[in-house]
Amino acid sequence: MTSNNNSMDSKQLIIQRSEEHKQLFIPNLSVDPVIFGFDQNKLKVLLSKLNYKKMWFLPGGYVKYSEDLDDAVIRVLKERAGISGVFMEHFGIFGKTNRSESFFDEFDEDLFHKQRFITLGYYALYNPNKLNPIPDELSEVCEWKYICELDKIRLAMDHREIIDKALLALQEKIAIKPIGYNLLPEKFTLSEFQKLYEAILGKELNRGNFYRKIKNLGILRKLDEQRRGGAHKAPDLYTFDEEQYNKTLKNGLFNW
Amino acid sequence: MTSNNNSMDSKQLIIQRSEEHKQLFIPNLSVDPVIFGFDQNKLKVLLSKLNYKKMWFLPGGYVKYSEDLDDAVIRVLKERAGISGVFMEHFGIFGKTNRSESFFDEFDEDLFHKQRFITLGYYALYNPNKLNPIPDELSEVCEWKYICELDKIRLAMDHREIIDKALLALQEKIAIKPIGYNLLPEKFTLSEFQKLYEAILGKELNRGNFYRKIKNLGILRKLDEQRRGGAHKAPDLYTFDEEQYNKTLKNGLFNW
Repeated sequence: MTSNNNSMDSKQLIIQRSEEHKQLFIPNLSVDPVIFGFDQNKLKVLLSKLNYKKMWFLPGGYVKYSEDLDDAVIRVLKERAGISGVFMEHFGIFGKTNRSESFFDEFDEDLFHKQRFITLGYYALYNPNKLNPIPDELSEVCEWKYICELDKIRLAMDHREIIDKALLALQEKIAIKPIGYNLLPEKFTLSEFQKLYEAILGKELNRGNFYRKIKNLGILRKLDEQRRGGAHKAPDLYTFDEEQYNKTLKNGLFNW
Repeated sequence: MTSNNNSMDSKQLIIQRSEEHKQLFIPNLSVDPVIFGFDQNKLKVLLSKLNYKKMWFLPGGYVKYSEDLDDAVIRVLKERAGISGVFMEHFGIFGKTNRSESFFDEFDEDLFHKQRFITLGYYALYNPNKLNPIPDELSEVCEWKYICELDKIRLAMDHREIIDKALLALQEKIAIKPIGYNLLPEKFTLSEFQKLYEAILGKELNRGNFYRKIKNLGILRKLDEQRRGGAHKAPDLYTFDEEQYNKTLKNGLFNW
């Protein structure tokens, strides 16, 4: 097996792919999936470390001439991170001149990767234990990084801005729609549910207010069970009321 | 002055522009502004009737290689509809294969306009009396059309779908943020305010519920004045409480 950690190899591979990309992909347009994970009460994001320049990227890619855009972003996530079955939503576009061109400054001007790219941002929120990322041929690793630790790594281009905007979109989304289904275990405490919202909002919430709002929405059902084993009084377990959850998902949290 | 109503002229003009476009614009990418107007208690949308094929279009266009995307959509609206100073928000992307290619089927394959376009949707809501549209060289007219009468005209490509999605985005927006500032006159009745929301939502709202929610938000201030001249009891006039309006704009209608 050849190592793909060698800098010379990784440059050669980019040049080789460039020629293939010109035949296959629409120029000037890319897609970037921002996959958030909720784990240990904190938010993570899925990133790839490129062999070339050893910087971190969202696992993005390009759109085939022959392909619907919605299919492109699914294929890109599969090819770059080995992940299937993730439902992503578009949240924004990043279209400033010179946002990406200078990253490949060592290469000839006609490199596919070196042109101006307007990128389309997509996001999703998943349980990272259910997704197993696999790095592609260009990447040393593909792994989850805690949002609170992104300052410690070198993110390429404007990918930090894209992640921040995706997080804003997620924060806006939880002011409109309920979340948590498929993200929390089947049975959970109100405190665990609150921690999900606190992780997304990046701040502590008042417990009394939060519980009152959740109860008013009616999306949770209290079970006749408690979470045993803690040092404190065993807290009640809850589950989602599927019917009411789906109704709120459809109608939204605030209705005129 | 040459007429630009002649079909032969309009085809020649498209061919001429095609060659210029190839030098200037990024291929495969377009922007489409959906400008909504609120007038006579109903929603309108700004459309251009193209001389070629006499079909109606959103006043969209392309992105220059040298231009930031945010500047492109402002320039396009100015060039296609003569309108400046409109703040637009991105709301969605339309990227299916064959969404636009067949419209220019009479032309050679190398026509700029005939390639596959992925289009970026932007929207805004304005008082149409403050915007005066002017048709461009390709268009017979550029004017406001009532949403409820769109079935009566021939809209090109997937532009009806783009308008419908923009309206959904607007409906979602009013579940998150207050609207109405710069759209209603300085002083208005609660009934007039309610009609704005009903126009956007496309349905009647319960008067009591609506008034209660508006009062809870605190974004309106009751004036010591009434609207005179109607057949009924003179209704109270209201104005926006600017501080509370801006606070709600920042924080949103629903807060965890």
